[in-house]
Amino acid sequence: MNSRWQALIVVLGTAVTCFLAGAYFQHDHATRQLQKLVQHDPYAYYVSSKIFKFQFFKIPQDKALSAQRVRLEDIMKYGYPGLDDIHLYSDFVLSYDRRNRVAHWVCEHLRADALGSAAITDRGRGRVRSRSRISYRPDLSVPSNFRAALADYRNSGFDRGHLAAAGNHRTHCDETFYLTNIAPQIGRGFNRAAWNKLEIYVRNLTLRYGSVYVFTGPIYKPKARSNGNWSIEYEMIGSNMVAVPTHFFKVLIVESKLPQGKPYMEAYVLPNARIPDNINLRDYLCDIREIEHYAGLQFFNGLRRSRIFGSNFPRSSQVFQNFG
Amino acid sequence: MNSRWQALIVVLGTAVTCFLAGAYFQHDHATRQLQKLVQHDPYAYYVSSKIFKFQFFKIPQDKALSAQRVRLEDIMKYGYPGLDDIHLYSDFVLSYDRRNRVAHWVCEHLRADALGSAAITDRGRGRVRSRSRISYRPDLSVPSNFRAALADYRNSGFDRGHLAAAGNHRTHCDETFYLTNIAPQIGRGFNRAAWNKLEIYVRNLTLRYGSVYVFTGPIYKPKARSNGNWSIEYEMIGSNMVAVPTHFFKVLIVESKLPQGKPYMEAYVLPNARIPDNINLRDYLCDIREIEHYAGLQFFNGLRRSRIFGSNFPRSSQVFQNFG
Repeated sequence: MNSRWQALIVVLGTAVTCFLAGAYFQHDHATRQLQKLVQHDPYAYYVSSKIFKFQFFKIPQDKALSAQRVRLEDIMKYGYPGLDDIHLYSDFVLSYDRRNRVAHWVCEHLRADALGSAAITDRGRGRVRSRSRISYRPDLSVPSNFRAALADYRNSGFDRGHLAAAGNHRTHCDETFYLTNIAPQIGRGFNRAAWNKLEIYVRNLTLRYGSVYVFTGPIYKPKARSNGNWSIEYEMIGSNMVAVPTHFFKVLIVESKLPQGKPYMEAYVLPNARIPDNINLRDYLCDIREIEHYAGLQFFNGLRRSRIFGSNFPRSSQVFQNFG
Repeated sequence: MNSRWQALIVVLGTAVTCFLAGAYFQHDHATRQLQKLVQHDPYAYYVSSKIFKFQFFKIPQDKALSAQRVRLEDIMKYGYPGLDDIHLYSDFVLSYDRRNRVAHWVCEHLRADALGSAAITDRGRGRVRSRSRISYRPDLSVPSNFRAALADYRNSGFDRGHLAAAGNHRTHCDETFYLTNIAPQIGRGFNRAAWNKLEIYVRNLTLRYGSVYVFTGPIYKPKARSNGNWSIEYEMIGSNMVAVPTHFFKVLIVESKLPQGKPYMEAYVLPNARIPDNINLRDYLCDIREIEHYAGLQFFNGLRRSRIFGSNFPRSSQVFQNFG
């Protein structure tokens, strides 16, 4: 009996040891394969930590990075309208047009809790203390030959107009002053009037409904020539040749608080020109397909718009007809 | 003795079995983990077949796909000038400008062996049998609202000019007839004259040196207005508003056959206009930085150009001065 027990223990011991040895061998083999792979394929690196969870030395997770990643996913929830030269900021995402030295589009996600009560008031150029201290500055992440400079706007006759509005971002307000987020706008009658009105309207929507996604960008609209042909014409300012857009658009998605509430979409196009003071913003509602056509962008790619989004734009959009 | 042998055999048998069981268990565990991963992370799919080489059911390698990948890496050896809306074809790579309905740039790699002897001859519109049968057609991989159509070019007064020249591609010639690879060009005096001359020059270079990389694309150059400001102006044709570029560029990299030979770079810019017949192509040499500035592209990113590339362009480029 004693020798039988001994034999059993030896067999069991061998069994357990060899099982572990086999598991270890295969684990080691696969890990080595992975390490070789990583040298050619960086994606393998991300996969490795997910397959082999029981590791002696755990790979520390970068929490700041993953928080930023979550924020990015949140901002871009409704997809990228285009993928040219994407720049990430703390509170908004931007696609940069290197040829025109102005953004293709800027995307923000506004939430009522982050806006605070200051939202409804006018942004009051220079009056708000925190804002007056922030200075416009070039974004050094853009290569120098495609970068707009402060000198380009000086004496140009145009305002440095925000795409992502400064008033929308209280904690990271300084980042909206990068010149990547700036476009030449007519000052009196547009940037300081109708465009400001639209920005305040967006903030009011946010306070009321809680969550609004905003895409903002320039349009370079073709004009009919006298001979019947069409042509594109727009000014360039400064030695870096910063384009002056003919129009600006805002595409809004308002998320309803109701349990089964669908998101609601609205699009506005305003001409970069002096607009009468007594305008009604409703007159500038626009079919999103017109914006897409002129800007070369695609919004909400893959979503069935007709089902999901409201469509409150007029049958024949007046915006481009009145302000060609 | 007999029982000792028996015990040894039992122990050895257990050892081998359990080793294999352990290895199998770990393999199975890792594979299941991978399968779960693949549902969230498509990259894991590509990694899986590379880690576990000993599989009962081998995943067949897609040879055509990997050959295409190698071809792509070869064509884009000198980097991507821009990353907007990339389209891959069998023999060239293209970045598409959705706003202008014309490519940003097209990149080809020409080799002497693939060109054959037909290269030096004129492309002879309609005379080469294989070419005359190929018809221009819209590229359905571009969303319909950004797609140029045949009707846009009809009666426009412009030629359908190839960016990647049809004569450079004997085996996949039909793909150069997609309208993504086409731009409106002045016919007489440009597309059928100077531009053709440049294309033949590129093929001659290839036959002589063996390997030439070609980037081709449009430029929309600003003009000085009478009031001293600058503006961009270009025509649009057809109902899809296809832009008519003011200039076209070609950036060439000629690879030397010599053992220590450096690659040699040349850039040409031709105005999309009637050019005199007796032109000298040398007059159209251009500083690559001017092309980058106007087109918003960046060539040979990360390479130290001054070291690697020849610079034979004139001190003050005449091209833009003579043909503003």
